[in-house]
Amino acid sequence: MVATVERVETAWMERTKYELIDCDVHQAIKDYRALHPFLPEAWRKYVSARGFGGPSSGYQTSVGLYRKDVAPPGGGEPGTDPDWLRKQLMEQYNVKYVLLNGGGILGLAALPDGDFATVIASAYNDWLSATWLGEHNADGRFKGSMMVAPQDPEAAAKEIDRVGDHPHIAQVMFASAVTPPMGAKQYWPIYAAAERHGLPVAVHPGVEGRSTTGAPTAAGWVSKYIEWHTCLPQKAMSHAVSLVCQGVFVKFPKLKIVFTESGIGWFPHVMWRLDRNYKSLRQEVPWLTRLPSEYMREHMRMTTQPIEEPPTDEQFLGLLEAMDAKQTLMFSSDYPHWDFDNPVEAFRAVPEGLKRRIFYENAAELYGAKLRPAAS
Amino acid sequence: MVATVERVETAWMERTKYELIDCDVHQAIKDYRALHPFLPEAWRKYVSARGFGGPSSGYQTSVGLYRKDVAPPGGGEPGTDPDWLRKQLMEQYNVKYVLLNGGGILGLAALPDGDFATVIASAYNDWLSATWLGEHNADGRFKGSMMVAPQDPEAAAKEIDRVGDHPHIAQVMFASAVTPPMGAKQYWPIYAAAERHGLPVAVHPGVEGRSTTGAPTAAGWVSKYIEWHTCLPQKAMSHAVSLVCQGVFVKFPKLKIVFTESGIGWFPHVMWRLDRNYKSLRQEVPWLTRLPSEYMREHMRMTTQPIEEPPTDEQFLGLLEAMDAKQTLMFSSDYPHWDFDNPVEAFRAVPEGLKRRIFYENAAELYGAKLRPAAS
Repeated sequence: MVATVERVETAWMERTKYELIDCDVHQAIKDYRALHPFLPEAWRKYVSARGFGGPSSGYQTSVGLYRKDVAPPGGGEPGTDPDWLRKQLMEQYNVKYVLLNGGGILGLAALPDGDFATVIASAYNDWLSATWLGEHNADGRFKGSMMVAPQDPEAAAKEIDRVGDHPHIAQVMFASAVTPPMGAKQYWPIYAAAERHGLPVAVHPGVEGRSTTGAPTAAGWVSKYIEWHTCLPQKAMSHAVSLVCQGVFVKFPKLKIVFTESGIGWFPHVMWRLDRNYKSLRQEVPWLTRLPSEYMREHMRMTTQPIEEPPTDEQFLGLLEAMDAKQTLMFSSDYPHWDFDNPVEAFRAVPEGLKRRIFYENAAELYGAKLRPAAS
Repeated sequence: MVATVERVETAWMERTKYELIDCDVHQAIKDYRALHPFLPEAWRKYVSARGFGGPSSGYQTSVGLYRKDVAPPGGGEPGTDPDWLRKQLMEQYNVKYVLLNGGGILGLAALPDGDFATVIASAYNDWLSATWLGEHNADGRFKGSMMVAPQDPEAAAKEIDRVGDHPHIAQVMFASAVTPPMGAKQYWPIYAAAERHGLPVAVHPGVEGRSTTGAPTAAGWVSKYIEWHTCLPQKAMSHAVSLVCQGVFVKFPKLKIVFTESGIGWFPHVMWRLDRNYKSLRQEVPWLTRLPSEYMREHMRMTTQPIEEPPTDEQFLGLLEAMDAKQTLMFSSDYPHWDFDNPVEAFRAVPEGLKRRIFYENAAELYGAKLRPAAS
């Protein structure tokens, strides 16, 4: 029993020791009709209390979407109460800033109707600005991801011009499920606009296998949710290779890409394989002037959750070293979802300097311009 | 100059020191009309000198398919001359056995017409048995992969029953491009037959993106050959997850799967991610009685080429440790293709005991029953 008490006390001390930026938090819309005021009249009829008719993939988690203890005491779905989120996540784990990445709204990228997806994205951004980033954000510690519809990149670029300079909009986001891979020229107006406003572009999994996004894995439709979830990083792998080879970072040298909730273990493997191939096949990508891995380390960031759990600390630290975590990795908890990572437990083996990079400094450097107003 | 001479002499000594089994060698058919004698009359008209009308993916290597020095002195395409292959590969690198995995024949898995694919597979197996594994195989050092058409698993099972006990047929093979993932029930007759005959089932990339196989990566169609090639391991990743979760190794406890030319760096990552998910989601796969990684290490084998090249020896050895290479990894050169791995160069940092496992012993244990007749 003494050991248990010591463990709890150590955890508490660590909690107070490290300030965090949580780069993947899922606030939710209690009633989607809250978007109505921000939607043109003609589109309102497509949005009901439950949502906007986004397609389903048919993959269903057997443990539920949420942690068991996250429903707000006052009622409503998990993630719908700003005060409860502050208390249960930010106070509990010493989180200074959170990135609010939405939830069901990511499904707009799988809508066959790109016009509808575009107006839904705008309505969501206005709702987010008015609520979580507005009336509930007196201390400025809520930062948000603005959504764009990848189906219409020119409209997405205009949307970035419209709301990208909001003081609490910290990045542009769409679903990682998109096809074709992110290097394709069709996305470039989004990258140009994001770079123009100093915003990273983030992608997030969850709608893989829905409608226009096609099969969720390289070999097609897997069967169980556990298979689907385990294969999610394949999207990020394709996007990473495509972004580098298509020359996105040559054209947009200030652009940063954030792979949210997409795993981290794939990153060294893809760097090694792409570098090896580059030595033989560089004539296919003559615009590149450095090794592919150099572009990846400079321009790509990953969030930690769900963090891989190698059998030994040595392997875990080796992975962090191989992926250059001191520069590329940013903490995320995925609150309030079922596979939440507790920062105290998940990084016990990581030395203090690197832990500070992962918990705070890498994100502070990436989102710095949007953190400063509240950091004073 | 002295240093160069010493390097050559060391290489020569290593060549004579380690005996090899090369698990991925591509012999070719000089003129596809050689299949005619083994085809029913009605199908012969579809097979010309150049091939059998398999679809193309449109991805084209910028360096050519072959190493520059591999054309047989007597003429013909690389890989068509058994004596030249013996001299240039087996004598040069002290290779005792080679696994002959074909080349263009892998494209049968992408034929929309599964009936045609089935007869092509049979004709190929008969041609292979009569030539490379027959008249050119007095010393029994050529071993072959029999092809099956995954489009018709019952016919594939019959084909395994028909030729699987040939003394030099060492494994069953089809293209890794197949969809759905390999755990799906439709493939189980193939696994039952392979297990019945003590044969591993191997898959090999190359036809990803062709016709019925769908998009080559999880995020759809990448652009360049370098992107396509770098993303090939995604197929193996999906297959590995699917095979474990669908319970293939519970149903077929003696079955071994060989991921040929599919990279190795993904293996630890997928084990870690799947094990983590299993802890939360095991109720979706109640037939599993051990950690997913235990099934993967026991039932899966990988061939080395194209071997990843991490920046440091420490990272390379860490990868081999994390993937349990002493049990799971088997050498392959990919001769005569452009990205041939020289065994002397590619494994300099690997200690002797592990090198022997990778170069010979793991393959000898896997293919043992088919190696013994010639090993005496």
